[in-house]
Amino acid sequence: YFKSFPVGYYFRPSDEELIIHYLKNKIWGKPLPPNRIFVVDLCDYNPEVLTALYTLLPRRETEWYFLSSRRRKYLNGQRPDRKAGNGYWKPTGTDKVIKNGNQVIGCKKSLDYNEGKQPNGKRTNWKMHEYRLDSNSMPSGCTGNRDAMKLDDWVLCKIYK
Amino acid sequence: YFKSFPVGYYFRPSDEELIIHYLKNKIWGKPLPPNRIFVVDLCDYNPEVLTALYTLLPRRETEWYFLSSRRRKYLNGQRPDRKAGNGYWKPTGTDKVIKNGNQVIGCKKSLDYNEGKQPNGKRTNWKMHEYRLDSNSMPSGCTGNRDAMKLDDWVLCKIYK
Repeated sequence: YFKSFPVGYYFRPSDEELIIHYLKNKIWGKPLPPNRIFVVDLCDYNPEVLTALYTLLPRRETEWYFLSSRRRKYLNGQRPDRKAGNGYWKPTGTDKVIKNGNQVIGCKKSLDYNEGKQPNGKRTNWKMHEYRLDSNSMPSGCTGNRDAMKLDDWVLCKIYK
Repeated sequence: YFKSFPVGYYFRPSDEELIIHYLKNKIWGKPLPPNRIFVVDLCDYNPEVLTALYTLLPRRETEWYFLSSRRRKYLNGQRPDRKAGNGYWKPTGTDKVIKNGNQVIGCKKSLDYNEGKQPNGKRTNWKMHEYRLDSNSMPSGCTGNRDAMKLDDWVLCKIYK
């Protein structure tokens, strides 16, 4: 199906499109548009390995999209576990609020991948935008403790170099 | 047809894709992939007007692509006429050579739109990338004088803000 698109067409969604049509539908259990967003546990992978596993043929792709659920760092804390493969994702800058018109629908966090152990890893060229749904946009009861090590239901991550 | 693509898919071709699959095919008279690249005479339009005429529905588009032939500024000179509507396109920086592997296939020029008369126009936020085919990639006899005011066959222009 995706191979039938004319040369030059790529998945380059706006922040609003990603949240409204992909992340929100996933969390609410509604059908998503046809997509090549893979469900993975980002904690398991170095992005170099991950993007090599999910080569998006037939054309050279430079952005990858994944759905992942975040693990807690500590059982009784709210901090997410940002380890990933042989390194970790380190937040850079501040979160950006995503609006649809005047309504806040989610937020976007920027992260860099560092190889090695926190906090002395070595920064790489791999970058991530992590999209979360605004808590008011969640189905009721969604943020609960169905899995004690799970921080929230889903985040949508764009990975690129 | 384009409305059937999933949310988030846009025409975001690489320089090489634009030249190989669109501009080169146009010049050689071969069929192009399905596209929304409009044929216009860019001399006739202010980009504000042009992009309003070619609103790309159903989604908010932020990049427009046009095929245009360039007029000469003077009948016996090689300089292109860069007037456009109530202003003119002003080159910025140097041309970028586009390669496919080691082979030069064309070049890209960056321009800003200025409103008013040369050289005292007022710069606007409208920008253009103008793609030309390398002369070695032209069909033989293509650069001739079939129309004395025409500088070359086709250029492909990306316009954005």
